[in-house]
Amino acid sequence: MNEQLCGTSRIYGCRFSLYPMCDNFIEVIKTALREVDTSKVWIKTDNVSTCVRGRNEHVFDVVKAIYLHAAKTGTHVVLNGSFSVGCPGDSEGDVYLSEDDVLLNEEKSKDISIETAMQFALYPMGIPHYMDVIVDGVNTAKDEGVFVAGVHYATHLDGDTHTIFRTIKDAFLSSHKEASHVVMTVNLSANSPSTKRKPGDGK
Amino acid sequence: MNEQLCGTSRIYGCRFSLYPMCDNFIEVIKTALREVDTSKVWIKTDNVSTCVRGRNEHVFDVVKAIYLHAAKTGTHVVLNGSFSVGCPGDSEGDVYLSEDDVLLNEEKSKDISIETAMQFALYPMGIPHYMDVIVDGVNTAKDEGVFVAGVHYATHLDGDTHTIFRTIKDAFLSSHKEASHVVMTVNLSANSPSTKRKPGDGK
Repeated sequence: MNEQLCGTSRIYGCRFSLYPMCDNFIEVIKTALREVDTSKVWIKTDNVSTCVRGRNEHVFDVVKAIYLHAAKTGTHVVLNGSFSVGCPGDSEGDVYLSEDDVLLNEEKSKDISIETAMQFALYPMGIPHYMDVIVDGVNTAKDEGVFVAGVHYATHLDGDTHTIFRTIKDAFLSSHKEASHVVMTVNLSANSPSTKRKPGDGK
Repeated sequence: MNEQLCGTSRIYGCRFSLYPMCDNFIEVIKTALREVDTSKVWIKTDNVSTCVRGRNEHVFDVVKAIYLHAAKTGTHVVLNGSFSVGCPGDSEGDVYLSEDDVLLNEEKSKDISIETAMQFALYPMGIPHYMDVIVDGVNTAKDEGVFVAGVHYATHLDGDTHTIFRTIKDAFLSSHKEASHVVMTVNLSANSPSTKRKPGDGK
């Protein structure tokens, strides 16, 4: 098992799915994908989800752009996924780590203003003090100033999508400083007809 | 931190969302919920997800029933969620552990036959040998006879929904024997227009 635990690839990844709640969901997904430049990430789609892998800035850039371009249609869309780094044996695609840090989608994404409700959870693997790392990650999120509430098995955020993405990226990267293998699940929802959570709603 | 790590509650839970890809998604969700008896679980819904907690048999019974009653409409529906057990500090709702083991939804669910494509991942927390536990959990799934393939960050299954649920429940419970805190993410998809994965598709 040791050789697996010693995987040293610093490749980041995200396996996610985009769910537009409308009859023409295929069109919404395809249109969003056409608007996004994925040339700096490894990408593969199957019948359940899409996986992107590469440098962390490009993984977050691509996932945020796909979500925003779908959400700007006004349809109720959800993006559900798991970010991962340090997964033992995760090496295929390392070539994408040699890309530079120029974001390919930020320019087109930055003016799309969408309110997002989201829930995320951090899973630092293989260490006994993982709860401390989770608490630190959530505190990093609180420092960003978005509304944060604990719910069972997750942390709830509300705010502008760009702030939300900066928040979860910071929480993920800060956790990664303390654990070599970290997974973060995210559930982002835009244009939902459901009533927004209010401070004090708690669990 | 120790008092958190020593949480002894054996309550199981699942935080999940149901996504019907259609204009009348609200109606599909509400109709499915009306068909399911949730009286043996703690349940709370917010604007992003629903959380159910209680004995493991009732948590799986309720989640499977909600998914099946939505999928039987023929709409492309997805259920995305995280099962959890042993989360430190998870105690509210322990009263539901005193319920008996008679399933409230199996009778109505058992004749609904739906093909499901799904991806799941196991996260045994707080232990250095977590990769061994994951491999054992996936082997448990293989023993059920559904098509199993490894993909980045997840395991892919295809098959009848009842077999799929038995498989992931067995994988989850077998992992729990080796780690006190385990999370399992699941992504279940029915009636998708996407082409099914084939053996040999690999990553």
